Amino acid sequence: MMGNKPHRIGILGATGLVGQRLVQLLEGHPWFHVRAVGASERSAGRAYADATSWRLPSAMPAEIAGLEVRRCRAADFDDCTLVFSGLDSPVAREAEPDFAAAGHAVVSNSSAYRQAVDVPLLIPEVNPEHLGLLTAQRRRTGGGYIVTNPNCSTIGLALAVAPLHEAFGIKRMVVTTLQAISGAGAEGPRALEMLDNVVPFIPGEEDKLEIELAKILGRVGDGCVSFDGLVVSAHCHRVSTVDGHLEAVSVELEGNPSPDDVGRVLETYRGKVGELGLPSSPERPIVLRHEPDRPQPRLDRDTGNGMAVVVGRVRCCRVLGIKFELLSHNTLRGAAGGTLLNAELLAKRGLLVER
Amino acid sequence: MMGNKPHRIGILGATGLVGQRLVQLLEGHPWFHVRAVGASERSAGRAYADATSWRLPSAMPAEIAGLEVRRCRAADFDDCTLVFSGLDSPVAREAEPDFAAAGHAVVSNSSAYRQAVDVPLLIPEVNPEHLGLLTAQRRRTGGGYIVTNPNCSTIGLALAVAPLHEAFGIKRMVVTTLQAISGAGAEGPRALEMLDNVVPFIPGEEDKLEIELAKILGRVGDGCVSFDGLVVSAHCHRVSTVDGHLEAVSVELEGNPSPDDVGRVLETYRGKVGELGLPSSPERPIVLRHEPDRPQPRLDRDTGNGMAVVVGRVRCCRVLGIKFELLSHNTLRGAAGGTLLNAELLAKRGLLVER
Amino acid sequence: MMGNKPHRIGILGATGLVGQRLVQLLEGHPWFHVRAVGASERSAGRAYADATSWRLPSAMPAEIAGLEVRRCRAADFDDCTLVFSGLDSPVAREAEPDFAAAGHAVVSNSSAYRQAVDVPLLIPEVNPEHLGLLTAQRRRTGGGYIVTNPNCSTIGLALAVAPLHEAFGIKRMVVTTLQAISGAGAEGPRALEMLDNVVPFIPGEEDKLEIELAKILGRVGDGCVSFDGLVVSAHCHRVSTVDGHLEAVSVELEGNPSPDDVGRVLETYRGKVGELGLPSSPERPIVLRHEPDRPQPRLDRDTGNGMAVVVGRVRCCRVLGIKFELLSHNTLRGAAGGTLLNAELLAKRGLLVER
Amino acid sequence: MMGNKPHRIGILGATGLVGQRLVQLLEGHPWFHVRAVGASERSAGRAYADATSWRLPSAMPAEIAGLEVRRCRAADFDDCTLVFSGLDSPVAREAEPDFAAAGHAVVSNSSAYRQAVDVPLLIPEVNPEHLGLLTAQRRRTGGGYIVTNPNCSTIGLALAVAPLHEAFGIKRMVVTTLQAISGAGAEGPRALEMLDNVVPFIPGEEDKLEIELAKILGRVGDGCVSFDGLVVSAHCHRVSTVDGHLEAVSVELEGNPSPDDVGRVLETYRGKVGELGLPSSPERPIVLRHEPDRPQPRLDRDTGNGMAVVVGRVRCCRVLGIKFELLSHNTLRGAAGGTLLNAELLAKRGLLVER
Repeated sequence: MMGNKPHRIGILGATGLVGQRLVQLLEGHPWFHVRAVGASERSAGRAYADATSWRLPSAMPAEIAGLEVRRCRAADFDDCTLVFSGLDSPVAREAEPDFAAAGHAVVSNSSAYRQAVDVPLLIPEVNPEHLGLLTAQRRRTGGGYIVTNPNCSTIGLALAVAPLHEAFGIKRMVVTTLQAISGAGAEGPRALEMLDNVVPFIPGEEDKLEIELAKILGRVGDGCVSFDGLVVSAHCHRVSTVDGHLEAVSVELEGNPSPDDVGRVLETYRGKVGELGLPSSPERPIVLRHEPDRPQPRLDRDTGNGMAVVVGRVRCCRVLGIKFELLSHNTLRGAAGGTLLNAELLAKRGLLVER
Repeated sequence: MMGNKPHRIGILGATGLVGQRLVQLLEGHPWFHVRAVGASERSAGRAYADATSWRLPSAMPAEIAGLEVRRCRAADFDDCTLVFSGLDSPVAREAEPDFAAAGHAVVSNSSAYRQAVDVPLLIPEVNPEHLGLLTAQRRRTGGGYIVTNPNCSTIGLALAVAPLHEAFGIKRMVVTTLQAISGAGAEGPRALEMLDNVVPFIPGEEDKLEIELAKILGRVGDGCVSFDGLVVSAHCHRVSTVDGHLEAVSVELEGNPSPDDVGRVLETYRGKVGELGLPSSPERPIVLRHEPDRPQPRLDRDTGNGMAVVVGRVRCCRVLGIKFELLSHNTLRGAAGGTLLNAELLAKRGLLVER
Repeated sequence: MMGNKPHRIGILGATGLVGQRLVQLLEGHPWFHVRAVGASERSAGRAYADATSWRLPSAMPAEIAGLEVRRCRAADFDDCTLVFSGLDSPVAREAEPDFAAAGHAVVSNSSAYRQAVDVPLLIPEVNPEHLGLLTAQRRRTGGGYIVTNPNCSTIGLALAVAPLHEAFGIKRMVVTTLQAISGAGAEGPRALEMLDNVVPFIPGEEDKLEIELAKILGRVGDGCVSFDGLVVSAHCHRVSTVDGHLEAVSVELEGNPSPDDVGRVLETYRGKVGELGLPSSPERPIVLRHEPDRPQPRLDRDTGNGMAVVVGRVRCCRVLGIKFELLSHNTLRGAAGGTLLNAELLAKRGLLVER
Repeated sequence: MMGNKPHRIGILGATGLVGQRLVQLLEGHPWFHVRAVGASERSAGRAYADATSWRLPSAMPAEIAGLEVRRCRAADFDDCTLVFSGLDSPVAREAEPDFAAAGHAVVSNSSAYRQAVDVPLLIPEVNPEHLGLLTAQRRRTGGGYIVTNPNCSTIGLALAVAPLHEAFGIKRMVVTTLQAISGAGAEGPRALEMLDNVVPFIPGEEDKLEIELAKILGRVGDGCVSFDGLVVSAHCHRVSTVDGHLEAVSVELEGNPSPDDVGRVLETYRGKVGELGLPSSPERPIVLRHEPDRPQPRLDRDTGNGMAVVVGRVRCCRVLGIKFELLSHNTLRGAAGGTLLNAELLAKRGLLVER
């Protein structure tokens, strides 16, 4: 691609919430063109418009509406250069390795292989060098590969603390999340559970957050990644917001920097791919706000087209040294948008090969 | 009182949200009888029913509806044995010392004198011995006195950690609150600020929480109270719930007890006034729940008539050792109910004297 | 019963939302004692506490928690005098006739047989004389019978307009409902559908409302009921409230009474069973409020323990003559409470026979 | 303008919610350029960014942020060709005639002069011929004039019924509104009033709706407008949505057209200015949806950039013949956007004169 024809894209799990966002984000994309959509047996053979309960305010792209939904089998996506996976984790666990074995580049939002030793858990601004893991992975699969992005509650946190880790070194962190309803997907909580309420539990979420961060911030070595020194503790809550995960972070940094020191690092951060011109890159990966009461989900989640993390209230923490609030859009940066940005980095690096 | 006539009660700030809750809770109270209601100049002289924008679902008690609202001056409450104060802090700062100087027992929900050195910051179950401060205070005032209860976000936390402090000793704590809208009073946030949103800031709240806890858990000595060793860090949020402050707590305890150890201590806690038979005492000050997703504000806030703190999800914290969630009803235990329970303890201890 | 032993009660569909409310309301009931609970095959054989995802703020009654869940078959409820049905309509359609055929008195909240010609659609205050239909029904079944209560959106409306129909005669009505989420049961709308949103459609609801009202207000004659002259049009909406259906009513009455005339009729209405002393009867079936902005769901739904309908804003309608707002609690008066009141009337009338 | 320089625009009440929306919508406008912002004495002299509590998710336009806020006096806006007024009604009542007397074209969102006999209550698609009233008005003022747009709950209704009136003739209408919180402005209801609640009353709203519609649909004659035959009755509610007024409409039309007839008229409607190319005109003023459960506020309010009214559920009404649901964005089409579209029509018609 680049300069000539756009890559031909397939979307697995295209009828789900993440799939719908991908369809929306890919409309008019300069490098990628959706050629195929895949979903469950039940949907296969129907037109996308008929098989999908469309949940987004903007209209379904006309071009996609008429596509026939395919089964999520590698052989059915032979005409695609790149396959996005918005599959649920149990389904992804079965399907994604088959696609990789068949030579596909799979860019996945699923949690199924995030902890696999040769699979990058990628945030382009933070750890593009983790793509180095692909050498080993492709040797194993014979050419295809899986690249994953972090869980929706991890990605904003990782973006916000990456420059702090780089500048000072992170030792320990306590994070409390207030997560939006859309993060639970189309089968999310009932209105009766959420109205005038908070649910202080999201199955598996605290573990994901505690584990993924160490892999993201780790260094590649000997074909694997780790940051054994990092200690993270998470409390996760579901609150009544549509989109935007808010997180209250307390962090212990090497050398005890001041809130001003921390603010300067966040404010000047541009990430490792700022110069690459990836279409979905926000101008700034971190936007620092100085008002006493920001970020707020409804007001700030669309910052940088939903691809920036917004940080505010950087101040002293009596226990761990520094505390702040962060917000990131869970279905954009935290899911479909993060997946798309990963794919853009792969394209830029020449890791998508025409089949 | 006790066995004979009920104490004659006055309520300062009776038209506000805390005042309304006091009016509601005192209806049919076995020991206390509301004789007088006070409010601002603007309301004085009007019937309580006319001066009040009643916000509670239950009907205004008929007996109170017809009372003439008085000015909040000590001389206007001479017929009362006990004065509750639901005044806003700036008003309380002026008025409460005048009442104490005039010989009144003032049981206040205001923050104005919580940190005064000879004023008890009282939770009957936790620190009834702090009433010892009254000796010094009454010497200073000539007989009247002020007793205060903690801020609505502090009181549940103090109740939950008091037995842990007693059993193990607390070293450090990180707490993140998700506070209900009613905590902001009748002039609380606009609907447009809260709908599909969270506000990650409540003016002054984090400071109150960090400071009050040390006074509550301190030991009386030489007429003052302190627990200098306690280090607390708070993040405070306003969320879209009507009542019930939820708090995610991470705590470092001496001797590294296990979650089971902590659960046992919480479950068997009865507090220091369990045997006194105070009318507003919950059967258990702490109710421990074992479901993975509790406590939840709408389902659990009325536990123990809104006077118990509900704790759940006691588990290991990688950073500080133990973490859990707690919930307490902010306008019952956290305000009017806490004030009332304090008054009941004073009555039981014979500290209310007929005038 | 009455004076001696309480009736032995069975509850069909006991694990659902209506069933849970029945369990809650029957705790400590003076006439009725829950002996048996029934649910689906999946739940049968388990303890009620294990089979039920309890959704109510108050605790599950201890006595019921340990009951073994039975299958919903008539033979399994032989030890019960009276069977409440909180079954979903398709299940009720199969099961309820079997119970009636086996000699059971079935008091149902289901919509399955509301329109059956010899089944009373009963509101004790409004149409107790419809119990006359039971003679024909029992002749048909051989002794057992089904009595139903109206849909949750119909019952408040029927209560509010019954005295107007009696005093003036109703000609036509346009009603717009704003219905609470709990009305949709445990499988109600997702939080993502309701947050910052209104859904202007509830399947089947408008038809139910338009049809049921005519039956309720009809006169018994020749073993059937009808009020052919009544013309009703409904718009139904689901809004973000937990409990309490609000309805905006415009009505054309014979003789064009003034709002004052209408208010007087509503205010003095006591219904046809006021003197019977049924335990769940509210003191007044209709409570008229005079503030400009009432009724409101959160403030007024618990009026009369959730068994009264609250009417406000009675005023002129330029199109139909009179308009007003009404509110009734959809899971109390509108479901479990209405069912219970029906059963109390049956007991009082001697229509429950020991088996 | 047009081909040469953009018109120089002033905004009165620029710091309020309507003013902020105008600032947002005018960013990059092809015909209009904001030169001046006006607000209360308290704000005058400060930079717009400092004087304004910005409530919109998108960032404040940098160009406007630095403007010095002016007093709302005609003399202070001499450099403007056109003045938008987002003033509150009592302030507008004083200020707007002064601006008109000084020769200004005032395009107002305020209700102050909507019923003035020579002031157009304008919806470009519906009644552009009402601009004929300006001849008389300008004769009276000496050259300046006021043009108004309808109330936020009227405008969507007027748009939806205008083609029905044109095609069939309207006789009577009952409308029930479910209005968003943003419609109440920055000083709207408290969160505690709206959470788990509906408020069935909006001061003055029902009257506005009933009166304005008759003026909008009236015919110009002898310098005044009226449609005496129209009978409208409204019930107005405030519900928990951020933006988007939903309205349930029952209407009696001449000749009893079928729902299909009505649907065809709505679907083919293009309004009277479709061919003018006004920048803020939606492609279609009415978008008809065929799903059973639409329109919904969160999903549909941004249709046509918030300038289209979305109609759905067109069906038979047993009482009045036809009923349907409509949705329009209350702060776009219903306020700032409607005002802007009016100004664009004035510009196109050459009614803005350089000063």
